[in-house]
Amino acid sequence: NVVFDSKKHPHRRYNPLLDEWILVSPQRSNRPWQGQTEKTIQEELPAYDSECYLCPGNIRANGEKNPDYQGVYVFDNDFGALLSDKVEFSDNSTDFFSIKPERGINRVICFSENHSLTLPEMEKDAIKEVIDVWQQQYDELGSKEFINHVQIFENKGQIMGCSNPHPHGQIWAQSSIPTAVVKTQKSLKSYFERTGRSLLEDYLQKEIETDERIILENKSFVALVPFWAVWPYETMIISKRKAGSILEFSDAEKYDLAGIIKNLTIKYDNLFEISFPYSAGIHQSPTDGLSHPEWHFHMHFFPPLLRNAEVKKFMVGYEMLAEAQRDITPEQSAEILKNLSSIHYKNRH
Amino acid sequence: NVVFDSKKHPHRRYNPLLDEWILVSPQRSNRPWQGQTEKTIQEELPAYDSECYLCPGNIRANGEKNPDYQGVYVFDNDFGALLSDKVEFSDNSTDFFSIKPERGINRVICFSENHSLTLPEMEKDAIKEVIDVWQQQYDELGSKEFINHVQIFENKGQIMGCSNPHPHGQIWAQSSIPTAVVKTQKSLKSYFERTGRSLLEDYLQKEIETDERIILENKSFVALVPFWAVWPYETMIISKRKAGSILEFSDAEKYDLAGIIKNLTIKYDNLFEISFPYSAGIHQSPTDGLSHPEWHFHMHFFPPLLRNAEVKKFMVGYEMLAEAQRDITPEQSAEILKNLSSIHYKNRH
Ligand SMILES: O=P(O)(O)O[C@H]1O[C@H](CO)[C@@H](O)[C@H](O)[C@H]1O
Ligand SMILES: O=P(O)(O)O[C@H]1O[C@H](CO)[C@@H](O)[C@H](O)[C@H]1O
Repeated sequence: NVVFDSKKHPHRRYNPLLDEWILVSPQRSNRPWQGQTEKTIQEELPAYDSECYLCPGNIRANGEKNPDYQGVYVFDNDFGALLSDKVEFSDNSTDFFSIKPERGINRVICFSENHSLTLPEMEKDAIKEVIDVWQQQYDELGSKEFINHVQIFENKGQIMGCSNPHPHGQIWAQSSIPTAVVKTQKSLKSYFERTGRSLLEDYLQKEIETDERIILENKSFVALVPFWAVWPYETMIISKRKAGSILEFSDAEKYDLAGIIKNLTIKYDNLFEISFPYSAGIHQSPTDGLSHPEWHFHMHFFPPLLRNAEVKKFMVGYEMLAEAQRDITPEQSAEILKNLSSIHYKNRH
Repeated sequence: NVVFDSKKHPHRRYNPLLDEWILVSPQRSNRPWQGQTEKTIQEELPAYDSECYLCPGNIRANGEKNPDYQGVYVFDNDFGALLSDKVEFSDNSTDFFSIKPERGINRVICFSENHSLTLPEMEKDAIKEVIDVWQQQYDELGSKEFINHVQIFENKGQIMGCSNPHPHGQIWAQSSIPTAVVKTQKSLKSYFERTGRSLLEDYLQKEIETDERIILENKSFVALVPFWAVWPYETMIISKRKAGSILEFSDAEKYDLAGIIKNLTIKYDNLFEISFPYSAGIHQSPTDGLSHPEWHFHMHFFPPLLRNAEVKKFMVGYEMLAEAQRDITPEQSAEILKNLSSIHYKNRH
């Protein structure tokens, strides 16, 4: 009889944050690929692009002119998915037609005036400035009476629907707590109520003991491939101490966060020696004015590339209808990321 | 004071099948797009391609030779995500490291010997043959002791990770009931226990009364844009009577299913006058040997294109971290699809 080996045999793993299972098929890692490949753009960008609507001094689509900023610059998204206006609403929802207006604010954060940079190529001090602004924005937006959740994220790369290479992220702040955050909160809360402890603090402890999926660690943060990761090189940055949100971080902790973001994204760029695409974002306490002792700050990185710069993982058919599926195991991915150089490939020669 | 209008104002809608909310931003439909565009391949394909591993008589990657088939042809996937072997397993799962082996069978279904066809271009009789095989496969696989769920689906188009244009679908049959099916079942079951009726039967009734999102209807089936659709042109085919699975369908019903699939996919092709990409699949009763009076056969279509053949909807950053988001409303999409010709654009001139 063959004994189960997670490196060889198809299996399912449980994601305790989302309370759902995923499918892992390690035996399938080397199937041939004949499908669509992605165009990888590897051009050197200029520090200033007169066509870029995010560069300092340029005119945006709505006619406004960007100031001549240095460092971080924040403005309201000209084509936001949310609007802050209050509308009158009488709720006629039924079992099948439940609808309700949603208020919110969408902002764009330029990480730097320099069009050609990305987080891994920015100085640690400059990334720390971005984190300062995330903290201010979370505070400012979260303090508004009609804002109960502040989603901070970055889409990087054309393959992630990002239309402009100028280094920038977004904030979508809104009245409701969004679906995936509600799910995560439910899991964190039920663990906290059961044990009096933070799910992620206990999880991190076990990951440090096992040491199979840790990529980077500094005084305040750990970067790892979660046991239940679905994207080939998915990672998570978790704060070592249970901070409910970015508001709780000291200056020293913000420097540590900047450092681990820089080092993780350098490894990402080094993986295929390209500017590595991903969507990343922070999960933290809602700003609904309630007490949330269950929350524990963490940042997700969801990168789509699978085998090389051209072949991505498609989350399609089976994944859309049934459940998320991966081939390479989280342990293999962690091993690869861990062993990559911490010097950016562009600076190596 | 402005009164809420679902055609103009950002809002959330509730999906009673998955028990989750989605975000709709109708005011954002006409934001300019400067991002990645998709290459659309519009070449005429030959009826037989000597390089295609699905064409009759050709050799597959594992050295096997396809028979000289006519019509539908089924075989075990040479690079399946699941394996049928039993492995020995002692469960050492903990709170954070839950893992279990998964057994299953992956099959490929060629819809036709003709390399150049797709479902909308096939004869209704030929589609009916595909449905006969889906029925047989659900029966055969579902009867196996270790198979508790049979997922039938199709990935169509390079943009959906489909590596071969030869008309084909897949079946992933497995021991566990996958994540999205468990969620759906939970909703169907709780509705059934509460009311003694089928959630989808009652929903369909309301959709027919409202008549805002119906695209097609025949004696046995309705095709509509669900009230809570997330993809720009997402649709669902629902059986009018509560059939738990494809096994219950008579010959006449299978002809009706063939007819509505043909007509829906013709409309899809006519939308941008291209072979329209999508992932589609059937949700129906698990084959776990338990009684499932809550289940009601339906088929989902998840197409990624948004504005034209080149611009797709990216489900990235906010969507991955927070919740699904759409711009064009389900009612607008339904109106557009409904008004499209039912004659395939290639046959029009
Ligand atoms: O099985 P295929 O067509 O090679 O692969 C495609 O469909 C599968 C099932 O939806 C996905 O897991 C793969 O990511 C996708 O590329
Ligand atoms: O806001 P952007 O960068 O124009 O748009 C991108 O990110 C958004 C938030 O993740 C998504 O809703 C869009 O589909 C995507 O193209």
